[in-house]
Amino acid sequence: MQEITKIALDAMGGDNAPCEVVKAAVKATQNRDDIFIYLVGQEDVVNEELAKYTEDKSRIQVVDAPEVIEMAEPPVMAIRKKKNSSIVVGMNLVKKKEADAFVSAGSSGAILVGGQLIVGRIKGVERPPLAPLLPTERGVSLLIDCGANVDARASHLVQFAKMGSIYMENVLGVEKPKVAIVNIGAEEEKGNALVKETYPLLKACKDINFVGSIEARDIPKGEADVIVCEAFTGNVILKLYEGLASTLIGVIKKGLMSTLISKIGAAMALPALKGTLKAFDASEYGGAPLLGLNGLVVKAHGNSTAKELTNAIYQCVSFKNKDINGKIKEHITEVTPSSEDEA
Amino acid sequence: MQEITKIALDAMGGDNAPCEVVKAAVKATQNRDDIFIYLVGQEDVVNEELAKYTEDKSRIQVVDAPEVIEMAEPPVMAIRKKKNSSIVVGMNLVKKKEADAFVSAGSSGAILVGGQLIVGRIKGVERPPLAPLLPTERGVSLLIDCGANVDARASHLVQFAKMGSIYMENVLGVEKPKVAIVNIGAEEEKGNALVKETYPLLKACKDINFVGSIEARDIPKGEADVIVCEAFTGNVILKLYEGLASTLIGVIKKGLMSTLISKIGAAMALPALKGTLKAFDASEYGGAPLLGLNGLVVKAHGNSTAKELTNAIYQCVSFKNKDINGKIKEHITEVTPSSEDEA
Repeated sequence: MQEITKIALDAMGGDNAPCEVVKAAVKATQNRDDIFIYLVGQEDVVNEELAKYTEDKSRIQVVDAPEVIEMAEPPVMAIRKKKNSSIVVGMNLVKKKEADAFVSAGSSGAILVGGQLIVGRIKGVERPPLAPLLPTERGVSLLIDCGANVDARASHLVQFAKMGSIYMENVLGVEKPKVAIVNIGAEEEKGNALVKETYPLLKACKDINFVGSIEARDIPKGEADVIVCEAFTGNVILKLYEGLASTLIGVIKKGLMSTLISKIGAAMALPALKGTLKAFDASEYGGAPLLGLNGLVVKAHGNSTAKELTNAIYQCVSFKNKDINGKIKEHITEVTPSSEDEA
Repeated sequence: MQEITKIALDAMGGDNAPCEVVKAAVKATQNRDDIFIYLVGQEDVVNEELAKYTEDKSRIQVVDAPEVIEMAEPPVMAIRKKKNSSIVVGMNLVKKKEADAFVSAGSSGAILVGGQLIVGRIKGVERPPLAPLLPTERGVSLLIDCGANVDARASHLVQFAKMGSIYMENVLGVEKPKVAIVNIGAEEEKGNALVKETYPLLKACKDINFVGSIEARDIPKGEADVIVCEAFTGNVILKLYEGLASTLIGVIKKGLMSTLISKIGAAMALPALKGTLKAFDASEYGGAPLLGLNGLVVKAHGNSTAKELTNAIYQCVSFKNKDINGKIKEHITEVTPSSEDEA
């Protein structure tokens, strides 16, 4: 018989909690019988929401977490003080091996801090990267790292490349994923000090398909599957992607609505256009994994609906079934004595 | 009588040279009588192109530069070896004060290197930044620095903020331009080591209107007029802007063409849409100035047409008439003994 993947789901996290989260739990357990969900949150609130569904709920268990971490709270403080919050309780389930993964659309900062402080790093992993998927002309690319720890070292970036490559190959099914480092030109001698130091290390890596530098303009074209960069740069890329896409779509809508003729034309063109823009939407593929932990933590987008959360849940199942963490342990061999404080 | 601005124009630079460059020279001198143009390039080629115009050419002078720097040439070598190239000859006109400005759509690398090696920095300017304009929902913002010298220091960024502010106020006419530093969060304590060091220095600056951090997602909204960052980050922002805009417009076109109904709709909507997208086009505003030099050097986009080049020429006139360099000298007071090799 197939193995069950147990997932702790943050019922209080995100703009649409708890209703979309509860809906995702019901949907995922209905669709697949290899999933068990711990719905972590304020018991009465979650139960009230759950009561709306008549479906079988035998593979859903509510776990009480009376406290809630707000989006604006300083993450380290929140994780240390709110021991009964959904994020801390959910992550402790992963730590105690009662759950394989934790999925949350809540505070990014708290998820990043909790992942490191509660779930903990795989031995040998120097820094766990947050790796969202970016939509491209050809599908999606993994942008690694977009986490909270900036000013990375070259050895971190090499580990990001390996972990990202394993993830894309096994969870997204990309054969020999092309790994590139974000740079300001294609030539090997270009770049800042960090990129210049990292480039030859990546080139020497036997277990990844390193294709060299990628300029930011080629990221949307999908020219690499794993895009390696330090978290400050990754954050700029991720947020500019979101911001520019939303601004451009707004500008285009305004243009389409500016005359009567164009309004009629827009009404005719809209259904086809929506279909294409939908393909350019990373949320279809689930959330951003925080890699290199003793378990899996997935950060879903703050405005996730049941659909995106369900996809994030399925992602956890692939992650477990493909033994991503086993593969990471195998490839992360260079244990560097780390002196930094990661929190 | 009004003063004449003398501009050296690289007749050999860019995808559309020499024809669009020569056209721009004729157009600019026809439209305004306060402009004198040196057309720098291979004499016979330029003269042949110029012969196509019947307009008055008394304020255009061809200056022979038999050599051409190709886009792919290593910049430092090209500038040192090709003394008779249009870039070296044109920049020497600025150095000798025979021209006020040099405009080129040629090799960015050669223009950046030449600007520093030939034209030279204003005393006190530690590093001359390249500052392109980015289109936003509200107009344009100046992104400073996007040059070739990465790994900047905090003192460089402070100078970028001052120079960018002077430029936006005087050349673009933005009153009290809002200056922001690119960061991964809005809070003062966020950021990498460079941003954390720079933030309080900018906050203490009396002569700029510092508004704090800007996240990349807010850049397209036009929330700041001067966007300060180190050149690696600036390069990523600039190139992702170009790449993502072109990809999204491609995806949208594909969507509009996918069904017969949507094709008819698209044909009706297109004229209005084009008008709006045109407003979202930074090339309307001219080229990217390389600031802090003893004169002005403007890098126009490689695919510039006569229209963009004419705008770059007008930009040089404003630059001179508003005495931008005089104002820069006034505000760049902190002369730091610099040990770095800038080339």
